[in-house]
Amino acid sequence: MEHVKKYIEENKDRFLDELFALIRIPSISSESAHKDDMLKAAEYWKDAILKAGADKAEIMTTEGNPVVYGEKLIDPSAPIVLVYGHYDVMPVDPIELWKSEPFEPEIRDGKIWARGADDDKGQAFMHAKAFELMVNTNTLPCNVKFMIEGEEEIGSPSLGKFCEENKELLKADIILVSDTGMIAPDIPSITTGLRGLAYMEVEVTGPNKDLHSGLFGGAVANPINVLTKMIASLTDDDNVITIPGFYDDVETISDAERAEMAKAPFDLDAYKKALDIDVVWGEKGYSTNERTGIRPSLDVNGIWGGYTGEGAKTVIASTASAKISMRLVPHQDHLKIAALFEKHFTAIAPTGVKVKVTALHGGQGYVSPTDMTAYQAADKAYTTVYDRKPVPVRSGGSIPIISTFEEVLGIKSILMGFGLESDAIHSPNENYPLEQFFNGIETIPYFYKYYAEMMK
Amino acid sequence: MEHVKKYIEENKDRFLDELFALIRIPSISSESAHKDDMLKAAEYWKDAILKAGADKAEIMTTEGNPVVYGEKLIDPSAPIVLVYGHYDVMPVDPIELWKSEPFEPEIRDGKIWARGADDDKGQAFMHAKAFELMVNTNTLPCNVKFMIEGEEEIGSPSLGKFCEENKELLKADIILVSDTGMIAPDIPSITTGLRGLAYMEVEVTGPNKDLHSGLFGGAVANPINVLTKMIASLTDDDNVITIPGFYDDVETISDAERAEMAKAPFDLDAYKKALDIDVVWGEKGYSTNERTGIRPSLDVNGIWGGYTGEGAKTVIASTASAKISMRLVPHQDHLKIAALFEKHFTAIAPTGVKVKVTALHGGQGYVSPTDMTAYQAADKAYTTVYDRKPVPVRSGGSIPIISTFEEVLGIKSILMGFGLESDAIHSPNENYPLEQFFNGIETIPYFYKYYAEMMK
Repeated sequence: MEHVKKYIEENKDRFLDELFALIRIPSISSESAHKDDMLKAAEYWKDAILKAGADKAEIMTTEGNPVVYGEKLIDPSAPIVLVYGHYDVMPVDPIELWKSEPFEPEIRDGKIWARGADDDKGQAFMHAKAFELMVNTNTLPCNVKFMIEGEEEIGSPSLGKFCEENKELLKADIILVSDTGMIAPDIPSITTGLRGLAYMEVEVTGPNKDLHSGLFGGAVANPINVLTKMIASLTDDDNVITIPGFYDDVETISDAERAEMAKAPFDLDAYKKALDIDVVWGEKGYSTNERTGIRPSLDVNGIWGGYTGEGAKTVIASTASAKISMRLVPHQDHLKIAALFEKHFTAIAPTGVKVKVTALHGGQGYVSPTDMTAYQAADKAYTTVYDRKPVPVRSGGSIPIISTFEEVLGIKSILMGFGLESDAIHSPNENYPLEQFFNGIETIPYFYKYYAEMMK
Repeated sequence: MEHVKKYIEENKDRFLDELFALIRIPSISSESAHKDDMLKAAEYWKDAILKAGADKAEIMTTEGNPVVYGEKLIDPSAPIVLVYGHYDVMPVDPIELWKSEPFEPEIRDGKIWARGADDDKGQAFMHAKAFELMVNTNTLPCNVKFMIEGEEEIGSPSLGKFCEENKELLKADIILVSDTGMIAPDIPSITTGLRGLAYMEVEVTGPNKDLHSGLFGGAVANPINVLTKMIASLTDDDNVITIPGFYDDVETISDAERAEMAKAPFDLDAYKKALDIDVVWGEKGYSTNERTGIRPSLDVNGIWGGYTGEGAKTVIASTASAKISMRLVPHQDHLKIAALFEKHFTAIAPTGVKVKVTALHGGQGYVSPTDMTAYQAADKAYTTVYDRKPVPVRSGGSIPIISTFEEVLGIKSILMGFGLESDAIHSPNENYPLEQFFNGIETIPYFYKYYAEMMK
């Protein structure tokens, strides 16, 4: 496929010019002052998809920012690839830390510096340009649909409903997403899993008012003491979570897949040094990457109670509270886990206190099995371009919309991310290496090619 | 001693007038706007002591508010009683909750309503009037010294040094204090112990910055999770404190004294109802009163870390902190306990976190043995006036200056308090029943009489 490299080489500057024009639209979804920019960015995407060779493209309204939909249907017998991306970006504060204007992209040191350079304008635009490449070189082997939303950075509040209402339109064999990262510029990887989340708030109430710790200390259950005991009991000495039933649905990972994942290069010393910690920590029997990738976890995200000002105040607080979240692995249902947590946390409350448990937020985990056709195709595509087999990586984080796609549309996603950890997404001085951008455009047509061949 | 009742009856109104004039001086020690009032209250006390019959009285400067010293030395062979009290009062906020002016005393329902009515203008002034009574009826059997300070409500910051510098002047056999309470108007009691205090602040640091709980959750020690485990381990399932050496110096209370204390009327149901708790709680093998009176305790007074705002934020905090105080019983040295705590808390910190422990505040406990002569004299005095033997009561709280007296001057205190729980000291609508005021004035001369007899 010499034409791929050649087409990119000949159109490089134009690709960048077009991406830069998109980046210059400050489409910050969380700031209402940018409402018009959301529409501008959507219009830009509609035109880009059409110019790239789509049969049609349109801006579809939602309860929030619009979704850009486009398609090129070439052959009913060919597979349908649904490209998902987003045109909205994160805010730019603290602005004073940026070395160049966030919405005026600059190339320095072989990288594009701007808000959205990676997340997700740069990464999503690779798909527009790879699509154009395939159309213009008459090598498009699949039907293609585009769904580019404008609310990913605020949690995709409208996209679930949009999918519900457009199931037929969005029908596809696979959803193709570039909104994650890879291990290093020379070490390709594919994100095969995202964790789910059950986020709880608990409140322990003891006496009906704050008490003097001298007059009552030792005779009345202190809600903070009790809360610490209750939280401490949620994990055992091996850092295993003690909530009954918690692990019932945890996906069993094959030894083969664990071995495959273990090949991912990981510098433990650098990891520890970056966090300034002496040792890593976690569930016994698992590596650091496994602890965030394939195992659930329980973290207190916040705790408060009593006197927290300067100096000493001898008070026994009436209440103590904590926010406790559990990261879940695929097949653990967040609603079921929230219910198990609530039941257990209420059950372990000692007499003398009252307990209130509230589920604040939740989302399902997601997994792309490595034996899935799309995974195999992606694997082969990376191997072709990078001359190295990509590493399957489970991310500890969550992209809730990916599990929503599976729930609502019944379609798996393949996460072909080209971001790097150094890209500083969501932070000042976001950047995206030119090499990643062009390698992405080069890898995507191979994915289409191998996927079409394997789906035959 | 018919003369006691008679003298009080004949001078009642004047006693109240004089007390009211003292109360009208708004001597709030924590508010600098009242600096002049501190001096006015001190002057008032100096005059009151002189008028009551002292040979001399003076205002002695300290680094803070002055101390009023007065004395009447009648016989080198008679014991010396040093009366301690304070002329400063607490602030009056929230002022809108007062039913009458805090510094304009009113008599309603047989009580004096005003800031300081009990604490400690009312209670201390009983001593001036009992002294006057003894002087004017030629029945004073002891040498008397007065030490009335103006900083008790802010922790007596200057009085320790004052004692250091005036050891000879303050030489006495016993310090007589009315700044505590009794169980009920018809149930006299003597406070025989005050707990000490060691107040610590701890900080647990994990990673050097806040982390995303998805990407790192389960792989890095979360300082809040760790802190809850560390705090939880400080007490066992029987609510016994696990710090090695913690109980080494705990005073052993004789069965006789425990039995005596157990006679103190205590309504457990009313106690639980007032706090809205189903059960009481505490160290196994001890009653509620024993848990606060004769046993040490450990309470978390405050805890904080991570995200404590509304909703869900998926963060692993870099640090978590808590304020932890231990109430100590007599013979437990607060410095030693603070050191034991620091050593233990540091020792139990798991690898992966750093721990910082700071001692914020401390004070020694205090005990008046019931076999002490002054206790026996007080016991007999209450029995004479109330026709009922007083109950020895250990208070869970602390009056640090009382242990300072013992440390610096080597003199024990006898705590003959006439306050009631309903007096609302430190709160709006402070009050002091007339009955308590006059019964106090009546009881004190009997104490002097019996104490002089027993010391012969």
